[in-house]
Amino acid sequence: MPTLDHIGIAVRSIDQARALYESLGLRVVHEETVEQEQVRTALIPAGDARIELLEPTTPNSPIGRFLAKRGEGLHHIALHVDNISAALETLKAQGARVISEDIQIGAGGHLYFFVHPSSAGGVLLEICQDPIADV
Amino acid sequence: MPTLDHIGIAVRSIDQARALYESLGLRVVHEETVEQEQVRTALIPAGDARIELLEPTTPNSPIGRFLAKRGEGLHHIALHVDNISAALETLKAQGARVISEDIQIGAGGHLYFFVHPSSAGGVLLEICQDPIADV
Repeated sequence: MPTLDHIGIAVRSIDQARALYESLGLRVVHEETVEQEQVRTALIPAGDARIELLEPTTPNSPIGRFLAKRGEGLHHIALHVDNISAALETLKAQGARVISEDIQIGAGGHLYFFVHPSSAGGVLLEICQDPIADV
Repeated sequence: MPTLDHIGIAVRSIDQARALYESLGLRVVHEETVEQEQVRTALIPAGDARIELLEPTTPNSPIGRFLAKRGEGLHHIALHVDNISAALETLKAQGARVISEDIQIGAGGHLYFFVHPSSAGGVLLEICQDPIADV
């Protein structure tokens, strides 16, 4: 059964955005710059799920362009599945539009792909799997 | 410690939007029309957190206006806290803009208030508490 893994929030400044969550008792447990995506990230666990703050390292990056177009706010949600290959096949068979045809390998070796918002009720939907725990 | 309670997604049709989540193995466990908000809701548990699909019952409603302005997509996130009064006081003391000054009582008797996106990094942030379990 899929679980909500994280919510990605596009922000101009992680240092400013984290303060609200910290005032409610939440804590940033991991910060990382993902060079491939030109983004700085901060992970805030909140129950089983995590809030992922996303700050662009350059304006000409996916998050930088999102901020220029829509401003700060909710960017994507990620569902964790047990079998990402099966999920990809199922969605493709339904005619869902995926952003890359293949499964990608992200930071820490996790596997992921994105479903385009046009196929997911306006939501940029990430499907992810931990390769060590689940394969 | 706060936990992610749910993610609200504004959709034109719950019947269409739920299919994607159901194809991944998730299930709608509760449907309800909240007359006060002129919205039909469907709850889809995904781990500890839930996806809440929101379909307006009339265009002239908060979700109806959101759809007209921004289209389908992520609408808000909700954090569950143990002490909603303390959370409201903390946020007000920081100068956060809240949408109503007082704590509201919602469907099923849960308590909630909303922080305006201008005070929460562009995110419409609901703070909620279950009155029976937590008080």
